[in-house]
Amino acid sequence: MKKVLFATTALVMTAGVAAAEVAISGDGRMGVIYDGDDVQFASRARVKFTLTGESDAGLSFGGEFRVDQEDWNNSYRSAARGERGAVWISGTYGKLSMGDVVSASEAAIGDLYEIGYTDGAVAGDPEEISYLVGDGANRDQGPTILYEYTVNQISFYASATDGVDTSVYDVTTGANTYTPTGNPDTDALSDHVAYSLAAKYDAGNWWAALGYAKHDDMSEISLGGEAKFNNFSVKGVFVKYDDVFVGTGAEFDSTIGLSAAYQADALTVKGFFRQDKVDVYGASDIKPRAIGIGADYDLGGGAVLAGGIINVDSDVAGVDDDTYADVGVKFKF
Amino acid sequence: MKKVLFATTALVMTAGVAAAEVAISGDGRMGVIYDGDDVQFASRARVKFTLTGESDAGLSFGGEFRVDQEDWNNSYRSAARGERGAVWISGTYGKLSMGDVVSASEAAIGDLYEIGYTDGAVAGDPEEISYLVGDGANRDQGPTILYEYTVNQISFYASATDGVDTSVYDVTTGANTYTPTGNPDTDALSDHVAYSLAAKYDAGNWWAALGYAKHDDMSEISLGGEAKFNNFSVKGVFVKYDDVFVGTGAEFDSTIGLSAAYQADALTVKGFFRQDKVDVYGASDIKPRAIGIGADYDLGGGAVLAGGIINVDSDVAGVDDDTYADVGVKFKF
Amino acid sequence: MKKVLFATTALVMTAGVAAAEVAISGDGRMGVIYDGDDVQFASRARVKFTLTGESDAGLSFGGEFRVDQEDWNNSYRSAARGERGAVWISGTYGKLSMGDVVSASEAAIGDLYEIGYTDGAVAGDPEEISYLVGDGANRDQGPTILYEYTVNQISFYASATDGVDTSVYDVTTGANTYTPTGNPDTDALSDHVAYSLAAKYDAGNWWAALGYAKHDDMSEISLGGEAKFNNFSVKGVFVKYDDVFVGTGAEFDSTIGLSAAYQADALTVKGFFRQDKVDVYGASDIKPRAIGIGADYDLGGGAVLAGGIINVDSDVAGVDDDTYADVGVKFKF
Repeated sequence: MKKVLFATTALVMTAGVAAAEVAISGDGRMGVIYDGDDVQFASRARVKFTLTGESDAGLSFGGEFRVDQEDWNNSYRSAARGERGAVWISGTYGKLSMGDVVSASEAAIGDLYEIGYTDGAVAGDPEEISYLVGDGANRDQGPTILYEYTVNQISFYASATDGVDTSVYDVTTGANTYTPTGNPDTDALSDHVAYSLAAKYDAGNWWAALGYAKHDDMSEISLGGEAKFNNFSVKGVFVKYDDVFVGTGAEFDSTIGLSAAYQADALTVKGFFRQDKVDVYGASDIKPRAIGIGADYDLGGGAVLAGGIINVDSDVAGVDDDTYADVGVKFKF
Repeated sequence: MKKVLFATTALVMTAGVAAAEVAISGDGRMGVIYDGDDVQFASRARVKFTLTGESDAGLSFGGEFRVDQEDWNNSYRSAARGERGAVWISGTYGKLSMGDVVSASEAAIGDLYEIGYTDGAVAGDPEEISYLVGDGANRDQGPTILYEYTVNQISFYASATDGVDTSVYDVTTGANTYTPTGNPDTDALSDHVAYSLAAKYDAGNWWAALGYAKHDDMSEISLGGEAKFNNFSVKGVFVKYDDVFVGTGAEFDSTIGLSAAYQADALTVKGFFRQDKVDVYGASDIKPRAIGIGADYDLGGGAVLAGGIINVDSDVAGVDDDTYADVGVKFKF
Repeated sequence: MKKVLFATTALVMTAGVAAAEVAISGDGRMGVIYDGDDVQFASRARVKFTLTGESDAGLSFGGEFRVDQEDWNNSYRSAARGERGAVWISGTYGKLSMGDVVSASEAAIGDLYEIGYTDGAVAGDPEEISYLVGDGANRDQGPTILYEYTVNQISFYASATDGVDTSVYDVTTGANTYTPTGNPDTDALSDHVAYSLAAKYDAGNWWAALGYAKHDDMSEISLGGEAKFNNFSVKGVFVKYDDVFVGTGAEFDSTIGLSAAYQADALTVKGFFRQDKVDVYGASDIKPRAIGIGADYDLGGGAVLAGGIINVDSDVAGVDDDTYADVGVKFKF
């Protein structure tokens, strides 16, 4: 027998229910991708749980995770263990989240605009900025915390890991399975607290933000801003890294990214450009770059027709560019 | 605090909600099975999500998957990656589905009647016909598509994979892990598009259907029909295979299957007979067969008492028949 | 689009729906733990499905499992295969459950009081008594059954496994992967039925229960009781084991446990003490013990502030005690 969930907050208000709740929502997509070599069918269906409650003193609390984020084996992918999803408490003094949260820098600045049917996944998500802390970077330390506080137009963010590596222990035997690589820069990395601080000024039609993150010797300074005027929006991000080794004799130096969007009724056209800089000791810098353009057409009722093209140039001699593309329909339920 | 979902479409209609929805349903079973050697307890509980929406122009879309179909590691069992479950779009010009869908042949003809408490699973599901495309056969190629269109009493079906093997890549390293076996018939198999076409004529109390499928050199022609009169229903399936190698010097030649059911009030008695033919080069054919009989008694409210016995004879010299049985209660929620 | 589930049984009654239902509830927690070496962030979010129905003749049936209990690979952790969660039928003649159920002894007597933010998990759950049957002990035999029947103030319990080992078969190849250890006490263990019987007398403000369990040569006799007076409650458990080998030349002899709680409005203070006895042949007994104390403060609306400290002494020469602690907020949705 099929159970029907209601899509109406109105009914809940009528009933006057103030208790803790579990809300359920979903998304899906179907279309085709060009992965640089072949055209492939690509589809998915997902469901998300959103948990909300309020204490007698008016403290809000909640949590959220998707069904596909509950998959413990292999990759520590489990909301029941704090490695995916998040829980939070929120009140007058701000919001404190714990779990698979983003860093302060990422919470304040975020990524470039996602384009296409797969939101950039077909090309390995080059629109995502590489922040040092949170959002997948330090899952070997278990849950990350994120604190957010907004007063007038200014928001403050702080986030940290606990500096205790949980991934080097075998889940069943409890044995330490980490094999040191002999590289002091990465060997002890997961035993150090990774933290991030950020501030954002939001004037309504534009905002600017500054972030800082540190993990062991590695550090990151990030700057971002976005402006919206009429149907246009533009966003820029610059991140400067220090001591972020990406292999013997090479260091990740910086990322600069720009994205823009134009919306006219149901149609949105979006694009981004990103260039990284990698310092190679005793040789020329490598400057990988990615450029993408895409369009979304809103079909209403939660369906969006979307497509995009992304070109990635690794700037390594003898390696060709890769061009990726996708087109399909995205659903929200 | 327990949340209660409503089992009433009426209430939804009253509320006049037209938006996208997530419906939730479940099933379960508890009983005992005889696996040919031992009697064992067997139980399960499952939950399914059904996602539905409609665009402004009246295009229907949706998706569905079960919680246990979200389990990425090991077997590519994940609705969030298109390997399980399905999404679809449906309108005046038919229905297009993508994901873990059945082939055109299977959509038109289907399998023999399922019997017993475990729906044949105790005996390895001999009531399921071996279709070449979809329904588990080509998951190494990612999502399959299925198109269905009905005009008057005639339905047309078409399905295909994309011919791009995704299973030979290691999920974490991205390396190609396929080791060619030296058999040209299977080595390059997953790099070929598998497709299927079928048509069905449905006269209400009887239907007949014809299907065709091809994957590399392998092909399949399938014929099926079903008739219902008074409390009886009878269904027959015949499938002829070509170039389907099942080992060195042996080829899967054909399957013939027949099933019948009789319903009297809450009681339904069902049975099936199936015989395969395997051509062995330079030796006699092997003719494995399976025969099963079972009964369902509807207890109302979603509970059904069910039991069945299935005998499988491999027709290989020196190998005994196996007899399987099960009895228990099946639930729908 | 977000779906809202209702937290009101009243509404369901109004609608007069008698059909099978899927209810959804959740829990979460966020806080810090001290694992004996380091302080770590610890959080989680979970969702549970509760399935309920009733046949035409008034037989109740149902099932339940959590999303994180659907994770087949590795550890047979799957409600869809009866290894986690449970299904049941309930009527005039008692309740019969199948799946990952507790033993008769555990159903009657249970564990000591859980303390702290992680309910004892930070210290490896020393408040949990080691029952021989069910609750994780015999999952290699697939589902366990539990029968419960109450008449007046007396409840009877019986539980059993089927004595058929399913874990030694490789899921994909079907091969038997068990490597005998040469110890006759454990080698054939999973091929023997494990069963348990128990009875409980409940006088309202106190109860007493007696249980018995047997698995191959191993047996267990358990005694338990609890009393509640004014704001106090006290519970005691004693278990005597026979032939339970815990290594060469050592046998698990007994467990004695005591726990107490005091509640004053929103505050509950809880504690437990447990001592095991291990017989070592030709040497002194080892007597590991654990002691814990904790407090819960109910914030209302499903939120509870909780903390606890647990000390575990292995009583092995040269091995120090371990002290664990946790504090955080627990949520119910």
